This record gives sequence, structure tokens and C-alpha cells, in this order.
Amino acid sequence: MPAYSRVSALRNIATRLRIGSVRATTEAGSGHPTSCCSAADIMAALFFAEMRYDPHHPENPDNDRFVLSKGHAAPILYAAWAEAGIITRDQLLTLRRFDSDLEGHPTPRLPWVDVATGSLGQGLCAGVGIALNARRISSNYRTYVLLGDGETAEGSVWEAAHAAAHEKLDSLCGIVDVNALGQSRPTQWQHDIDAFVIAWRACGWNVVAIDGHDMNAILSAFDTAQATKAQPTMIVAKTIKGKGISSVEGKNGWHGKPFKKGAEADQALAELQTQFVPEDHPAVPPEPRVVDRPAPKAPGPLGAPPYSLGDSVATREAYGTAIARLGANDDRIVALDGDVKNSTFSEKFEQKYPSRFFECFIAEQLLIGSAMGLAARGAIPFPCTFAAFLTRAYDFIRMAAISDLNIKMAGSHAGVSIGEDGPSQMALEDLAMMRAQPNIAVLYPCDAVSTDRLIERMAYHHGPAYMRTSRPKTPVIYGPDEPFEIGGLKVVRQTTNDVATVVGAGVTLFEALKAHDSLRSQGVNLRVVDLYSLQPIDAETLIRCGHETKGRFITVEDHYAAGGIGDAVDAAVAGHGFAVQRLAVRQIPRSGSPEQLLDHYGISSRHIVEAVNEGRPD
Amino acid sequence: MPAYSRVSALRNIATRLRIGSVRATTEAGSGHPTSCCSAADIMAALFFAEMRYDPHHPENPDNDRFVLSKGHAAPILYAAWAEAGIITRDQLLTLRRFDSDLEGHPTPRLPWVDVATGSLGQGLCAGVGIALNARRISSNYRTYVLLGDGETAEGSVWEAAHAAAHEKLDSLCGIVDVNALGQSRPTQWQHDIDAFVIAWRACGWNVVAIDGHDMNAILSAFDTAQATKAQPTMIVAKTIKGKGISSVEGKNGWHGKPFKKGAEADQALAELQTQFVPEDHPAVPPEPRVVDRPAPKAPGPLGAPPYSLGDSVATREAYGTAIARLGANDDRIVALDGDVKNSTFSEKFEQKYPSRFFECFIAEQLLIGSAMGLAARGAIPFPCTFAAFLTRAYDFIRMAAISDLNIKMAGSHAGVSIGEDGPSQMALEDLAMMRAQPNIAVLYPCDAVSTDRLIERMAYHHGPAYMRTSRPKTPVIYGPDEPFEIGGLKVVRQTTNDVATVVGAGVTLFEALKAHDSLRSQGVNLRVVDLYSLQPIDAETLIRCGHETKGRFITVEDHYAAGGIGDAVDAAVAGHGFAVQRLAVRQIPRSGSPEQLLDHYGISSRHIVEAVNEGRPD
Repeated sequence: MPAYSRVSALRNIATRLRIGSVRATTEAGSGHPTSCCSAADIMAALFFAEMRYDPHHPENPDNDRFVLSKGHAAPILYAAWAEAGIITRDQLLTLRRFDSDLEGHPTPRLPWVDVATGSLGQGLCAGVGIALNARRISSNYRTYVLLGDGETAEGSVWEAAHAAAHEKLDSLCGIVDVNALGQSRPTQWQHDIDAFVIAWRACGWNVVAIDGHDMNAILSAFDTAQATKAQPTMIVAKTIKGKGISSVEGKNGWHGKPFKKGAEADQALAELQTQFVPEDHPAVPPEPRVVDRPAPKAPGPLGAPPYSLGDSVATREAYGTAIARLGANDDRIVALDGDVKNSTFSEKFEQKYPSRFFECFIAEQLLIGSAMGLAARGAIPFPCTFAAFLTRAYDFIRMAAISDLNIKMAGSHAGVSIGEDGPSQMALEDLAMMRAQPNIAVLYPCDAVSTDRLIERMAYHHGPAYMRTSRPKTPVIYGPDEPFEIGGLKVVRQTTNDVATVVGAGVTLFEALKAHDSLRSQGVNLRVVDLYSLQPIDAETLIRCGHETKGRFITVEDHYAAGGIGDAVDAAVAGHGFAVQRLAVRQIPRSGSPEQLLDHYGISSRHIVEAVNEGRPD
Repeated sequence: MPAYSRVSALRNIATRLRIGSVRATTEAGSGHPTSCCSAADIMAALFFAEMRYDPHHPENPDNDRFVLSKGHAAPILYAAWAEAGIITRDQLLTLRRFDSDLEGHPTPRLPWVDVATGSLGQGLCAGVGIALNARRISSNYRTYVLLGDGETAEGSVWEAAHAAAHEKLDSLCGIVDVNALGQSRPTQWQHDIDAFVIAWRACGWNVVAIDGHDMNAILSAFDTAQATKAQPTMIVAKTIKGKGISSVEGKNGWHGKPFKKGAEADQALAELQTQFVPEDHPAVPPEPRVVDRPAPKAPGPLGAPPYSLGDSVATREAYGTAIARLGANDDRIVALDGDVKNSTFSEKFEQKYPSRFFECFIAEQLLIGSAMGLAARGAIPFPCTFAAFLTRAYDFIRMAAISDLNIKMAGSHAGVSIGEDGPSQMALEDLAMMRAQPNIAVLYPCDAVSTDRLIERMAYHHGPAYMRTSRPKTPVIYGPDEPFEIGGLKVVRQTTNDVATVVGAGVTLFEALKAHDSLRSQGVNLRVVDLYSLQPIDAETLIRCGHETKGRFITVEDHYAAGGIGDAVDAAVAGHGFAVQRLAVRQIPRSGSPEQLLDHYGISSRHIVEAVNEGRPD
């Protein structure tokens, strides 16, 4: 078979990848050489026969893409790069050092890494997004994801499996490295290759089972994958953990253990050295199929949002309108939803740009994971669902933050103000969850105008961002030309003798305004701040407010007490001797009407008035 | 078929359940009557022919258990209870009211509900735990889980599917109500019954496909399930959303919409009334097969932990030792892990009590979800994994909090102090995530003694609890008889002229002690607090410390800045005019040695000393 004339060269590359992995982990004194060795033949075939890419231009949009879902095998990825000339062989020996970008698990500090991996089970979700992006930009690039067998216990893998089949993503090819050993014991399915084949076939994938150390079989499987239309392909590769080093081959207890410097490592390396074979033809990565495409047109100005003061619009609906407006202006905007598009109003985007809308069904890990893949390849994805259900994807959100990806998340139906559906549908921890990640911008608009303006800001902000929207309709309080910035706030009521600053956002801003009006009728002036940007936060203006309002803050939020507006304000004004009193939901809520719940859980205007009055000197 | 002589009675019950669901949602003005109607025949068969339970004694440990995974169909569950005499028919009409426990989605405020549902895709994980519990207590009770078809897009469903087959849980029977319509559109697989059958069979389940409105077929499927050994059974029921009400049957756009009071509801109810048939035999729930078992023996005193001052033990290892010690003392203690038992040291428990250890493999939603099921049925489960990977289960943790379940979570490898593995393995948001839930006790011990003592406290604390443990070894600083309480703290260094209170926990406590020693050599006294309980928090002692140390706090934590120790202390001392300065990780970290990282990210003793000195008046 002439196509496979490079087999001997590829086998030697595999041996060099094993040697590089062992050397790097031994030098680092930690890492996962045996997890690298099981994948070495697959990696050699992928990087030097199958994938088409330009090693000198990672930014080429038509390069085939690779996701190392089993991120702990990072050294073999780095070894493949060294083999391709992307990094030097000396650099390999800086693995895991503080001064090296070759981290313990791959991160996008390195231009060839699209998404950080190392939290297992995420790579295929990202792969779905990367493959969807190829469709979006009309590229022929293919997407490859290398999974460990242990990580297929993660449900997120099966969310991606179902979605890739549903989307007929034939440019997506997964490989499961079935080495049968997890970290602490044999895996659930061990070497039951049939179990894997049946499972992937049941999801609608083309499945090829091979010996993952047989180079001809590997190349042939990739050929089959390329020839398969309207279906993604999963290559189920039976492998041996530690392959090539007889002292550890297939042995439990060698996960995450480097060979010790000296005799132990020397012996392993010497054994690998014996495995070189004579070779005829060199193996080099095929060049990408470059597609001639027009440069994406620069987005124009969006124009003022279609609202007038006093209109009554839920911010979740303004969200849908805003992303649809944005979509008209910029082809990179895509929207994703989790079967709640008629509640989040992302259906407004779908109606106008169906080819840029991805229905993820009820699979929130896929929702965020595929958005991560899309973002990594230049799209500006807006994944949204109920804010409560974003908790389902928190590990993905965490990894998106580590990857500093451009995903623009939105969560609707925040807080007890959703009412009768009850606590399972109420997001009361989303602000805490998002704020905990230091590089996520966290926005919480109260009206349609601020929602619209902040969606545009989010889209063109670098890095991950989150917007919290609300279920109830709220009045438009800002004129269409009012500017909003990430990191800003609005002082919406103030006098020169305010007794306190009340900080609200979303639905509680209106409770603060009611409290303001009620107190004003008693001759008491209140400052009211709309904290529409919780992170970053405008500490300077808050501190000024503190000085001007007798050092008193009252925060009021439709969120649990920890990690939300109260903590954000307190941290921002720390060290100035101000008193920050927090009104927040302090127990697990129950079903009821929105008004009952706001009042019962202590965040209605009545409670603000009481807090102001209690704190006033007689 | 005499066994099915009650078919006509069951059909009438199904009609009454539909009527009850329509009435309740119409009265409430919200809810999901069409999602109830598709499941009515299944529910009638389950509650009045298949399940064995005593309607008057929900606490009976041998009652068969039911989990309504499609929680939005709550009204039909409540209607079944009304039919069984557990509640009155009048109560049904209080659905979703603030003064009623019949919430929009089921919660354990009601004694027949084991776990709150409404976040889709969780019920089967809980069902696995409930079925594992039957094995633990040697009961014959069976566990039934009703799933919606849309929710099978959730990966967590497939985590449970694989685990139930692996554990050969033949007492577990799922039913998928395949009504083909999601909230916003047809589901991914619609009425492709084969897709469901193949998928569940691929997971190793016994699968029966039926017409979900054919009562004989339903009863026969349950019989098949009961007769099947060593395999769980999934009944794939093809149904029609809105079944019984011709105006909405199988129609998109009727999800989550009640019939309007008046003509619309009257017409639906009138049509249902016509569906009653003559009946011969009544249908009543079969009684439970009560098992005569000895009462669980009361746990004895645990004795002092096996450590001496100055021993060097990682808190993660002390965790493993502690749960194993506890396991000897109390049969209700079970441990669960996600293929990291050799890192979390839960293997110490497994080695002693293998029958009470459940390996969840790399499936953290299953880990927490099955712990929820176990806890609901009287076990005291300790699920653990790397703290970073608990983010994967945050939606389950949220629902466990809503359910106020007795789960005792532990997360190891917290913070940058894990070192070279890099950010994907570092938990830096777990405290924020856990503290955000108002009823989760959050513990963070620094040494082996406090870990051991707090594990015992956790076990017998009512409600959910979380312990954060660390990777590096730390010295034992407490004597074996030192008492620890949930909600307590330790003042470990103090004088009468301390210039500030430094609050640390876990690894940073030792940085604080180093800073203390260094400053003392300069004649500066520092108070040092070990905040081993972040929630609840000992505000009183902190406030006293504030008054005694010039109103200055410096918090230092191996965690991101938002939602952790700094925010907890600040919220606890709010209103006293103290200054709280936070030392925390403020950017996405990278690989490196633990010492390098603690120093680089600003949480080492050097930074504490600098903070103390900077803040001191000249």
C-alpha cells in the first residue's frame, strides 16, 4: 500500500515521542509518561500523516485542529510539536516549570492549543464547537480529538456524542485510547472493545476498532474516517498503557508516575532506543487545504436600541433582541441554547440567522463546551440558558476562564423573582460562581437599554463574560443613547444629603427606587446605584458615594448572601471604614408569587426602607 | 390475564390523574399539564399496581421508591398521592402557592420526595444511589425513576446508565416518557424509539419498548423488569404529549402552559371525563415486603485521632484515615470516589469496608447524585474527588442543598499549592461555590487532628457539608484532644498588643504562622486565626479579635479573591468599621512548584509580613 509507505518513519516518530515524553517527565519529576506511551503511535500518525497543517502558522484558519482531551498526556503533545519543529527538543525539558509555557496540562498560552484540557471529558464538546466553526467559515479543516478511555465515564462525552451525530459532523474524528487503566484502578470497561464500539455506534457514529499500536491499522482507520460522510467517526484504539517500556506495560500503579532519574529512566530510554526501525520515506505533515475566502467584514455601528423610556420589557427578551441585532452586523456572532430558546429569547436570533444558531438540547456542558470550541476558532458565541442550569457547566466555565476564551454567556430567570416554578429553576448562586473566576466580566442589567448596550460591549470585550437576565418585565429607565461600559455603574438617584447608598441591580434596582420614593416622601434622601457591572467594578465611584452618604451602604440582591453584590461592594470599598449592610436571600426559597418571594426573603423595598431607618441615628 | 384484571381501574386512575393535573395547573395559572398527561398511564400503573409501599408510612425503609426525574410533571405526582390518600384532592388545588408544600417542582419538604428534581437529568443518578442503599440495608425495595425524553440529552443520565449496569442494579427500573416534544421544539431523537432502545441496550440495560398508553403493555414491561436479574431495566415508552386532550395532543407550543380557566379548561376536563371505562376490580398499591432487620447500632465514641504534635500529614490523607475510622464505628457511613481514591485517600476506607465503597469512575455528577440518593435513604455518604472537579457537579450540589440532604462532600488538591499539575487541577473557586449555598457547612482544616475531628462533626451534622483538603503535608499543630466544632475557629497566636489579626486556613495558616514568627523577631505581635469553619462562621470571636487588634484583618487564602475567606470574614465583621485586607490568588495561575506559586500569587508569608508592615502607622 503506497499510501502507507511512511509507516516505518511513523513508527520511529512514535518511538521518539515516547522518548521525549519519558525524558520530559523524568526531568520534571512529575507527569504521566505511561499515558503518553499508549497514545504514541496514534499521535505520530495524526501529526505526521493525517493532519494537514502549517507548523509555522498556527493562526491559519484552515489548519486541521487537534484537541488533547486526555490532557495529562501533555508531554506527548509537546513531543509531537518538537518533532514538527514548533518547539525545540530542549524546550521539552522545561516541562511543568514555572518559567515554561509547557504546563502540566495544555493551556492556550501555547498557540496550538485551542482549549485548556486536564479536566477530563471536555475535549469532545470543544471538538464539536471547532467542527461547527469549520462549517461556519466554509473551511475543509478537520477536527481530531484524542480521548482517554477513563474519561468516557463523563456524561459530557455523551452529550457531545449525541450532538455530533445530530449535526452530522463528518469533519470530526475522535480517537479513544483504550489503555484500560485509570488513575487508581482498571477502568469501568477495561479492554472490552465491543462495549466502546456498541456505545459509539448507538450514538450514530461511524466506529472503527483497531489495535492502537498497529500503524497500518491507524492510517487505514483515518482513511475510513475521511471517506465517511454525514457521520462523525470514532476510532476505538486498543492500547497498552506504558507501551514500549516492558517494566510498566499494562501495569496498574504507574499512572502519573515519572521514571526516576538514573537507572530507572535510563533503562526505559534504552529499551525505547532499541525500537527504531530502518525507514525509507520521511513523514512530514501534509499542508492545509487553504480556502480562498473574503476577509470577514468589519462590524459597523449597531445603532441605538429600539426602546423608549417607560417601555416594559424583560431583560431576557432584550437579550434576544440584542443578539439578533448584533448578528445582523457581524458574521462571527453565533448563538447557542439548551432547549429554552423561547424563554431566553435566543429564538429571535435563530429566526434571523438559523445557520448560526446551534440547538444544544438539554445539555449544558455541551452548550458551554461547544461555545468554547467556536470561540477558540474566531467565532463570538453567545451560549444561554436559565442561569440556574449554568451551574451544570461550571467545570467547563472554569476551564473557559483558564483558557481565557471569548465566550459570552447569558443566564436568564435569575433569583426568586421567577416565582412559582420554585427553587430548582432559580439562579441564586450564579453571580458567586462567575465572580469567583477572576477574568470573567459579570454584568447584570436592569432594563432593556442597558441590556442591549452591554451585549455589544460583551461581544467585543476580550475574554469570557457573563450576563444575568431576569424573568419579569421591568420598565426602561435609560434613554437609548445612554452609554454603558464593562466596569461601570450608574448613580440613578442622588442629592447632596443622602443618608445612605443603596446598591441594587436587575429587579432589585426597582425595589431600591421604590424605597427611594417612599423615603423621600418622609424627607429622607437616598442615593441609588445601579451596579450593572459586578466584575470589574467601579470601586472609585462607590468609594466616593460612601464618603458622600455617611459611609453607609445597603446592598440588595436577588441572590444568596455569599459571593454576589454585597460581597462585591464590600471588597471594592474595603479599607475605607464604611458599613456595608447586605440584603440578600439567606435560605433555600420555595414556590410563590414573585412579589411574595421578594418580600418574604427580605429583598423588597419595604426591607430597604427598614434597613435605612434602623441604621439612622435617632 | 388475571394479573392484569385491574387494567380498567388503572385506566380510570390515569384519567383521574390527568384531570387532577389539569385542575391543579389551571388553578395555579402555571405549570406543565401536557407533560403530565403523557405520563399518566405509567404513573397509574406504577403507583397502583407495580410499586409496593405503605401510603401511611413514608418512613418505612422497605417502601419501593419513586423519583420523578422530569420534575416539571410534579402535578401528576401530587395527583397520584391524592389518589392514594396521601394528600387530599383539595390540597392539589394549592399547587405552586406560597402557603403550600406542593411546589412547582417536587422537593423533600414532602416526605415522599427523596431528592428535589426540576433540574433535568438528575433523577437517575439519585436512583442509582437509592438502589445502592437497598443493597446496603439488605432490603428488597425497588427503585423507579421516570425520565423525560428531552432530559436524556444530559450527560449525567449516561453516567448513571453506565454505573447502574456496572453495579448490576436489577432493583432499578427507569421509564423514559418519550413524548417527543421538548420545551421549545421537538426533542433530539423525537419518536425514534429505536434510538432509545439501542442507546440503553448499549449501556448494558435490559430494555423494553412499549406504547406508553397501553396499560397491559406497561404492566407487562414492569413484570419483565422484575424478572430480570443482574441488569437494570429501562422501559422506553412511546407517548403523546397532552394525551387525552385532543386539542393539544402531540402539539408543539404547549409545553409549560396551563389551560386557561373557563372554556379552555372546561373543554379539556369534559373530554377527559368521557374517558372513564367500567371497572371490575379496584387497584390499590401492594404492600411493601417488610424485611425484619436489626436496628442499626448506635455509633460509639470515636476515640482520639492517631496523631502527635509535629507529625507531618497531608489533610487529604488524614481525611482518608478519618472516614475509615468512622466507618468502623457506624454502618451508615459509605464512601464514594471518582477514580482518584489513591489521591484523596478514600482507598483507606475501601480497603476496610469494600461493600460500602462505591467507585463512580470519572463521573462527578454521578458521584454527587448517587450520594444524594444514598443520603435520602439513611446512609451517611462521603463522596470525594479533587475539589476542582466538584465544579463538574455544581448543579447536583445546588439541588442537594435545595433538598437539604445529608451529603458529606470532600475536595482535595485545593489551590495553587498543588504545584506542577497546573490550573486545571487547582480548586480556586470551591469555597465560593460551596459558601454560596446557604445551608452547606464549609470546613477547611489545616492539620490532621482538625481534619479528623471535623470529619466526625460533619458526619453527624444535619444537612450538606463540604471539607476542603490540601495536597502538601502539613505539621500537626493540635493535640489529639483538641475540640473542633462546625462554626468554630481557633485563635492560635495572640498577645495583648497584636497589631492585626491574620486569618488563614489550610496551607495559608502555616504562612501566617511563619509571618507571625518573622514579625515577632522584629518586636511586632500578630494575632493568627485558623478559620477552619467558613460557614457557619464564628463572627463573635472575629469581632472581638478586630476590637483587640486595632481593627485590622488580613485574610490569606489559597483561593480566588471572590467568595472565599476574605469575603466570609468581611461579611462576618461588617458594620464594625474594621479594615479587611485580602491576600488571595487574583489571576489564572500556571504550573510551578508549590512554593513558587504561593509566593508568586501573593499568599506566602512574605506577603503577609509586607501587608502588616504597609498598613502600620509610621
